[in-house]
Amino acid sequence: RIDGKRLWDSLMAMAEIGATPKGGVRRLTLTEVDRRGRDQFRAWCEALGLKVRVDGMGNMFARREGRDPDRLPVLFGSHLDSQPTGGKFDGALGVIAGLELMRTLNDLGIVTEAPLELINWTDEEGSRFGRSLMGSGVWAGEYPMEPMLATKDVDGITVGEALDAIGYRGDAPTEPFPADAYFELHIEQGPILEREGKAIGVVTGAQAQVWYDARVIGQDAHAGTTPPSARRDALLCTARIIDLVDRMMRARGEDGRGTVGFLQVLPNSRNVIPGETRFSVEFRHPSTEEIDRLDAQFPREAGFIARDCGVTLELATVFKNPLQPFDPGCVDLVRQAAARLGYPTREIVSGAGHDAVYVSKSIPTAMIFTPCKDGLSHNEAESIRPEEAEAGCQVLFEAVLARANR
Amino acid sequence: RIDGKRLWDSLMAMAEIGATPKGGVRRLTLTEVDRRGRDQFRAWCEALGLKVRVDGMGNMFARREGRDPDRLPVLFGSHLDSQPTGGKFDGALGVIAGLELMRTLNDLGIVTEAPLELINWTDEEGSRFGRSLMGSGVWAGEYPMEPMLATKDVDGITVGEALDAIGYRGDAPTEPFPADAYFELHIEQGPILEREGKAIGVVTGAQAQVWYDARVIGQDAHAGTTPPSARRDALLCTARIIDLVDRMMRARGEDGRGTVGFLQVLPNSRNVIPGETRFSVEFRHPSTEEIDRLDAQFPREAGFIARDCGVTLELATVFKNPLQPFDPGCVDLVRQAAARLGYPTREIVSGAGHDAVYVSKSIPTAMIFTPCKDGLSHNEAESIRPEEAEAGCQVLFEAVLARANR
Ligand SMILES: NC(=O)NCCC(=O)O
Ligand SMILES: NC(=O)NCCC(=O)O
Repeated sequence: RIDGKRLWDSLMAMAEIGATPKGGVRRLTLTEVDRRGRDQFRAWCEALGLKVRVDGMGNMFARREGRDPDRLPVLFGSHLDSQPTGGKFDGALGVIAGLELMRTLNDLGIVTEAPLELINWTDEEGSRFGRSLMGSGVWAGEYPMEPMLATKDVDGITVGEALDAIGYRGDAPTEPFPADAYFELHIEQGPILEREGKAIGVVTGAQAQVWYDARVIGQDAHAGTTPPSARRDALLCTARIIDLVDRMMRARGEDGRGTVGFLQVLPNSRNVIPGETRFSVEFRHPSTEEIDRLDAQFPREAGFIARDCGVTLELATVFKNPLQPFDPGCVDLVRQAAARLGYPTREIVSGAGHDAVYVSKSIPTAMIFTPCKDGLSHNEAESIRPEEAEAGCQVLFEAVLARANR
Repeated sequence: RIDGKRLWDSLMAMAEIGATPKGGVRRLTLTEVDRRGRDQFRAWCEALGLKVRVDGMGNMFARREGRDPDRLPVLFGSHLDSQPTGGKFDGALGVIAGLELMRTLNDLGIVTEAPLELINWTDEEGSRFGRSLMGSGVWAGEYPMEPMLATKDVDGITVGEALDAIGYRGDAPTEPFPADAYFELHIEQGPILEREGKAIGVVTGAQAQVWYDARVIGQDAHAGTTPPSARRDALLCTARIIDLVDRMMRARGEDGRGTVGFLQVLPNSRNVIPGETRFSVEFRHPSTEEIDRLDAQFPREAGFIARDCGVTLELATVFKNPLQPFDPGCVDLVRQAAARLGYPTREIVSGAGHDAVYVSKSIPTAMIFTPCKDGLSHNEAESIRPEEAEAGCQVLFEAVLARANR
């Protein structure tokens, strides 16, 4: 069995890197704080005798050789980057649990048939450079690499510059290699497992989503002198689009998701009618068809609002992903492991995007969820109990071993 | 007569300090760029033999002695600070026209009966520290000085620190001194004079206004996993309040003004439901009673919206000013000067706030407006013609001389 206390201690040690006063974590991708997290992770891996390689997007792979040189590796991992005001477990749980798995194998002197690789993906969160699952997305060929390296954060720093600045632009090829399977343990980030008292979520896939970059162009003008009829208020238009996104979400009931999380206002001065805004829009739904309908409806209705406000709306799709089902064989290994260990389980579709989604395009994939307090994530108060982490790690251990030794 | 070409050349020289690529000006108050503008202004004044003093808020007073030691000074001026993406003339016109007035007197060897003082007020715009007319407001006793000096910009720099950093915390007392009158020349910043073909606006007063600081507190949560019923979206609530402000404005017809110009979103990440926003709200109207009604209605209706969204709204009044009429005697001097010079005029109520509003609480005050292209201000494209500047300056010259020699 894995060591629950050691797992928890390492989770807490990682949580100190970028710890916030409110008990959360701020470890934005490719920052100096991320570098410290990566360095710690690399040091832990090397202490176990794992060989660490880094690809051109900064994705990190820590390899443990198997007995059979002809077997393809079994992969597992997650991400160490966080939201600006994120929690201790979103991403870190899957990476540190993978480390605990490696440590346990070393302790027990087990050599698996297939090699094992533990992965830390770059920029899963997407909050710095605007695209979630960036590292796994480029690796999987979903996002072309050169434009992604040239993408800038709000301060104008490119992904490439940020990689170089922290010394994590590696020379391993940034592309899928032959592998036998990929497993990812993650907190659910939603309320379902907790509400139903299930220790383990057997994740059957991830829901469909579409993300947009929006820009509204009106005209800066004096707030005190410009009469209603002469206003071309970019923020007013944006406000109405935010309300539209909410109404479109609610029209889909409790399965609907529609969010504007990012908004920049220009010139952002109290007595100036805003002449420009930039903002994000995203919709998610378990049904691909529903996302197709939202994707047809939203640009049209947002366009009507812009016309009414006398402003110009520019809308670009950042990405659109259908419902992504995971590999039935791998999902079954998770189901069997949890059953063997006696944990109450539930099949679940992931509400969040995960690196597993892009990995699953070329490699048989499954995910394991554990509950989190009040379903809260992307929040500094995100919280799980040590026994929940241990259960998830134990299931990961068993599923990976079953696959590697089959 | 004043020298229209010299006036224009100095306006253009000042516009180079903080010039933006789009032809506007970014000379935010108490920044390094503002310091360069102030240094230039001081050098120009001292070259004329004027004595410059600076008070504890950085307000600058350039004095020219009169013939009669018992006469109180006649004051005039405006401000050299600008919006983040402002124009060349908002504020600068009144200061540089005052300088041209002084230069003309020197050229003609005229000594007025009363002394003259040309003023550059600190932070008229209010976009950096959140309160417009800051320098004149503290000077006039409308804002208490110590809390104002401790007020921070979005980067956490206080007014006091900013004054020290640019070397403009002076030792002259920051309070009204006995003075005979105050005149301020400014561009209209609205469309009325241009539309009616009037060269000069005889400003009879400034409209009523109320400004608020608002903060909405909801809960950060994951955009992909948090169902509609569990959301406490601070930005959604803010969007609905922005729409409310617009509806309340439009319900007052073409005289209504209601604007949200500033908005900050936290944590401002695409896949996080925003847990907090901070924003500004302002209403203006020529009628004090209408502002009283808006001030009663807005907090109540915004509160209903917050309750519906499951979030908390904090609302603080930044200031509330009634319609401020100017001094009939000073206004008449402007009217007579313009008539003597043969300019078509129109009585007008200022839509914008001006330092003249606070000065007029203790000193007889009037303002002169000149048209601006398309009524556009607080915009880099703000534009006036040289003959419009010259006309305004000439009226200022005549009104000030009439008062100083009466
Ligand atoms: N797991 C997670 O929070 N991923 C961020 C990408 C998303 O928004 O779903
Ligand atoms: N004149 C001017 O633009 N003043 C700024 C204060 C206001 O918002 O009216």
